[in-house]
Amino acid sequence: MTGAASRKSFGSDNHAGTHPAVMRAIVEANAGDAIPYGGDPWTERAAGEIRRLADAQGEVFLVFNGSGANILGLDLLLARHEAVICAESAHINTDECGAAERVIGTKLLTVPAPDGKLTPELIATRLAGRGDEHFAQPGVVAITQSTELGTCYSLDELRAIREFCTANELRVYLDGARLANAAAHLGCTLADLAVNADVLSFGGTKNGALGAEAVIVMQAANAVNARYLRKQHGQLSSKMRFLGAQFNALLADDLWLANATHANAMAARLAEGLATIPGVDIAYPVQSDVVFARLSPGHIAELQRDWTFHVWDESASMVRWMTAFDTQESDVDAFLSDIAATTGAVRA
Amino acid sequence: MTGAASRKSFGSDNHAGTHPAVMRAIVEANAGDAIPYGGDPWTERAAGEIRRLADAQGEVFLVFNGSGANILGLDLLLARHEAVICAESAHINTDECGAAERVIGTKLLTVPAPDGKLTPELIATRLAGRGDEHFAQPGVVAITQSTELGTCYSLDELRAIREFCTANELRVYLDGARLANAAAHLGCTLADLAVNADVLSFGGTKNGALGAEAVIVMQAANAVNARYLRKQHGQLSSKMRFLGAQFNALLADDLWLANATHANAMAARLAEGLATIPGVDIAYPVQSDVVFARLSPGHIAELQRDWTFHVWDESASMVRWMTAFDTQESDVDAFLSDIAATTGAVRA
Amino acid sequence: MTGAASRKSFGSDNHAGTHPAVMRAIVEANAGDAIPYGGDPWTERAAGEIRRLADAQGEVFLVFNGSGANILGLDLLLARHEAVICAESAHINTDECGAAERVIGTKLLTVPAPDGKLTPELIATRLAGRGDEHFAQPGVVAITQSTELGTCYSLDELRAIREFCTANELRVYLDGARLANAAAHLGCTLADLAVNADVLSFGGTKNGALGAEAVIVMQAANAVNARYLRKQHGQLSSKMRFLGAQFNALLADDLWLANATHANAMAARLAEGLATIPGVDIAYPVQSDVVFARLSPGHIAELQRDWTFHVWDESASMVRWMTAFDTQESDVDAFLSDIAATTGAVRA
Amino acid sequence: MTGAASRKSFGSDNHAGTHPAVMRAIVEANAGDAIPYGGDPWTERAAGEIRRLADAQGEVFLVFNGSGANILGLDLLLARHEAVICAESAHINTDECGAAERVIGTKLLTVPAPDGKLTPELIATRLAGRGDEHFAQPGVVAITQSTELGTCYSLDELRAIREFCTANELRVYLDGARLANAAAHLGCTLADLAVNADVLSFGGTKNGALGAEAVIVMQAANAVNARYLRKQHGQLSSKMRFLGAQFNALLADDLWLANATHANAMAARLAEGLATIPGVDIAYPVQSDVVFARLSPGHIAELQRDWTFHVWDESASMVRWMTAFDTQESDVDAFLSDIAATTGAVRA
Repeated sequence: MTGAASRKSFGSDNHAGTHPAVMRAIVEANAGDAIPYGGDPWTERAAGEIRRLADAQGEVFLVFNGSGANILGLDLLLARHEAVICAESAHINTDECGAAERVIGTKLLTVPAPDGKLTPELIATRLAGRGDEHFAQPGVVAITQSTELGTCYSLDELRAIREFCTANELRVYLDGARLANAAAHLGCTLADLAVNADVLSFGGTKNGALGAEAVIVMQAANAVNARYLRKQHGQLSSKMRFLGAQFNALLADDLWLANATHANAMAARLAEGLATIPGVDIAYPVQSDVVFARLSPGHIAELQRDWTFHVWDESASMVRWMTAFDTQESDVDAFLSDIAATTGAVRA
Repeated sequence: MTGAASRKSFGSDNHAGTHPAVMRAIVEANAGDAIPYGGDPWTERAAGEIRRLADAQGEVFLVFNGSGANILGLDLLLARHEAVICAESAHINTDECGAAERVIGTKLLTVPAPDGKLTPELIATRLAGRGDEHFAQPGVVAITQSTELGTCYSLDELRAIREFCTANELRVYLDGARLANAAAHLGCTLADLAVNADVLSFGGTKNGALGAEAVIVMQAANAVNARYLRKQHGQLSSKMRFLGAQFNALLADDLWLANATHANAMAARLAEGLATIPGVDIAYPVQSDVVFARLSPGHIAELQRDWTFHVWDESASMVRWMTAFDTQESDVDAFLSDIAATTGAVRA
Repeated sequence: MTGAASRKSFGSDNHAGTHPAVMRAIVEANAGDAIPYGGDPWTERAAGEIRRLADAQGEVFLVFNGSGANILGLDLLLARHEAVICAESAHINTDECGAAERVIGTKLLTVPAPDGKLTPELIATRLAGRGDEHFAQPGVVAITQSTELGTCYSLDELRAIREFCTANELRVYLDGARLANAAAHLGCTLADLAVNADVLSFGGTKNGALGAEAVIVMQAANAVNARYLRKQHGQLSSKMRFLGAQFNALLADDLWLANATHANAMAARLAEGLATIPGVDIAYPVQSDVVFARLSPGHIAELQRDWTFHVWDESASMVRWMTAFDTQESDVDAFLSDIAATTGAVRA
Repeated sequence: MTGAASRKSFGSDNHAGTHPAVMRAIVEANAGDAIPYGGDPWTERAAGEIRRLADAQGEVFLVFNGSGANILGLDLLLARHEAVICAESAHINTDECGAAERVIGTKLLTVPAPDGKLTPELIATRLAGRGDEHFAQPGVVAITQSTELGTCYSLDELRAIREFCTANELRVYLDGARLANAAAHLGCTLADLAVNADVLSFGGTKNGALGAEAVIVMQAANAVNARYLRKQHGQLSSKMRFLGAQFNALLADDLWLANATHANAMAARLAEGLATIPGVDIAYPVQSDVVFARLSPGHIAELQRDWTFHVWDESASMVRWMTAFDTQESDVDAFLSDIAATTGAVRA
């Protein structure tokens, strides 16, 4: 994959490298001494700008990666005994090695959500037992936008969850590792999304950063302890200016949105092409930078000889094909061509 | 501190930026796609080379920062109920916001160590109560090399601790955030140091990296669970190639050693200059990149108007002056000149 | 429920008081001073006898209650990062307020098990992702005998789980809060059951004790850290002789088996009676001291006016009727008579 | 120690059995069914009466033992990231196997306190670093009354701590495993003591109970989550009536105060006798049910042949001699006589 002649990976948006503008910003931030641990101007500017974009009254905290952002975000919203309601497919449930349970001691009360999205009705199924000391007590609802299945909550859907949670004394954490893709898909602002959460992450890494995520705390009251928790979770960077610089680059001229819009467009192009290929079924609505598809195990194996991607669910013969900020139209077209050839739609 | 005309900081070695060679390596690693989470060739090369330098039979794991390295290192050596013996001045005790207690649930059994160094005798003071279920049960001894007070354990001192620990069924964790400075001071190899630990960290960040640390697991048996623990602690980078690249640059032509040797030399130059200035007492042997000194509170305040550094212990009127890979002789001399002027040794 | 004229509770076997022989043993143990924390002869005798009955090579630890036993049992079998596979209906998942996640930081990988029983096939569904650091790594399988749904694993079923777990490097924890009821139902020894676990609890409280549970560690190697873990979890009684005395009374002349046999017989009598009452469906095989039944919501409400019991699943209109060591045949018959009258099978 | 002819233990107040009135109450509570988990009238009466005696606006929660009470009390006062300031000699620091760190993830910021008592000045020494994310952030001050060294805070001393803590936004937890002894010594009410804490424990076990402690939450706001935390920590008894009954017996006719007054008097009698014996030095003021004394190692060894007690500090040749509710004057006199004979004050 790293050789010059290799094909573009459809494995994940984190197979991509760093956007050139982000890399330039990192290089430029390397200018002599700076106050460490976030007291530098790069970080202050990035945090201030994200705060403004999200219309947050609280604070913004930069961290290294998405798992760190999720742990911090949940930790600052949970009372010591509380549990989290989330979709079974949530990254915190399936992809973080049990970190939430291990490191912050919270139980995840999971709900099967066929398209990766919670609803007030689904959340309500985990509220029985509130007030009874034998049952885990949910305090936070965690949603992902865009979801792990590539779908997006509409703003109405988000609002409905928010209202349900407020009415039921539940706080909302939003895992926004791909928040940019959702904003691009919905054509909305960060603030439109953020208003429906108490705390949310805003992912840079999958959007073209080298490695940087922001935790946005919407209300000031929730931000009070956040910097201690970030330190305890090993997410406080000493040379934080290099995280700040990454976000400054992404925020300049809305590069974050351009990157997401492009990645989404590449996934849409892929989906459109697949629609003409018999033997390949698209599993979920394509609303971000990923296509989930079902095709025969033999065809999957054949394609994996030349292309990099994940089998998502072996028993369902389902694969995940993901684009990135640097996926080219020609990459998509070459991949489509091989898929068509492999599945026999077209003789290669 | 970030303006063009500002004076070099003596506040910390993490006030410095990134060494140009490290930055070049980061830029060069930005070449298309790479397998994420450490499956890339940059990481493999870095880990392999560190493993070789440390003469480790186990494995090497890259993480984001020093606190993360310490948490991971301790976590993989401790049984679920065990405590850690360390010096009162240990970074894990004083500078990580209680992370070890919070995140891995271990008690730190601290020992006053005037020069920051444990000894078998000091360790032995915390062994009473072993086998008694009412007492915290130490399982690991944590040492720092070079220490938080700028001193270095000699190889004999390390060996004595190691032998004592082995004889007493204690594992050894070595916090090597400034391991390079110790190797430079002692004129020894990484392997000379590593042989006395079960797990150690090897710090890149304070040595010129943008942000990268290595956790070296000496025996294969201790490495088995390390990658799960790294993930749980939010220290698994998706675009890990950029951590690997940093170490590759530091390891090329022993840049790590050159950087540390230089920083140490700058601290030595500072100490030598101070020796001629009445009213400034050097508090600890200068054996790495830092000088602790006592001078009058008034002089401290005056110096802080122009220079960046920390008051280490206000009650003792003690300051910490730290150099870095990029401290210049002229920086030291200018600083010395101002110190002399301030303290009245020389009229400026 | 506490007045003289009140009806026997069918709510739970912990609504009952203490068996008179157990209470006598407590009173008799109140004889002057004793070594605290389990160094007393009552505890030694109880632990020794349970060890013998279970044919354990390890050790036996007395604790206060079932949740404490489960936490201790899991804690001493789990590596720091590991998860637990259990049935969705497991007590540790549904009835302990998230204690396992909170206090020992382990993730529960749950499996829907219609009759409360795991099988090798069900366990296997949670083994995908082993060896992949992104997935929670199961280390222990937790089963309950008799189960929360009143069913019992046959010895063959237990053996199959045990063999599967051994082959897959999984340890087995058995929650035996009602182990006596299983032994009584299967007509087997404690050792027949214990041989299929690495660690198991043996419940006294639901069997007629005032409050006492034993954690049986089958292999010596797993027992090494147990007393430290018991202390950390607040389960070390200072006047432990009173826990030991309770078990001594239960073990004398196999009172534990007689109590369980009786409670099981009362549940069987109830089930037999119900079989003749239209409109009441028994939901699970009656293999211990409990009957789960479905009847109309109106009839449930009417019965609850006079009788104490739990609605198990409101949406399924399912109730739980539980007997105890002190349930009388006349209690069962009176209850049956009222059920029949309420449901209209017989005019009262 | 358990034989008829054995000498009274001076080892600990938990070597004693259960006061006859407490045992009678347990037996009497064994009357048919009762609502489990504290819904029974015995528990309600005990909790209500303790609440009244402490003049608490919050709630009272019964638990099994002192370690459980301490964990619960701290857990409900601490924010997720906070640390606890306590004396080095505090039970939570020295005698609970690191439970506070392990189970609630809090760091103990210890202060050497020669007589076991904190002061505002001593507390202030651990407040440096507040607001700095690198330092552990104290949120609670934990004191013990009477202390582990047998001393008592005067009401003025408690008030001074309370005022200092309020002024510094620190909550106060009081470990009252021997609160009764303090009330007896000071001639004050429970409310006089409780008013100076946010949460406190009230120990039954060392006062004549079989095993029961109360956690008193003074303000209602702090009590909201307590029952979930109690459940998570395995301190929720199913047959809680037997804990309630114990407290009812202790509270009837102020038996708790009589027991403590008697135990204190026995320690005072011992101290008075020792004052006449050369070669035995009393180490701390005798203000509860314990005497710490220094005598020669040889004499200690000789006395331990016939008497049960602990060597508290081998290096200081200091022992702990503790009385209990059932220590008789004749026990003290016989012990004194042997001490005198052993130390050569009197030829036996």
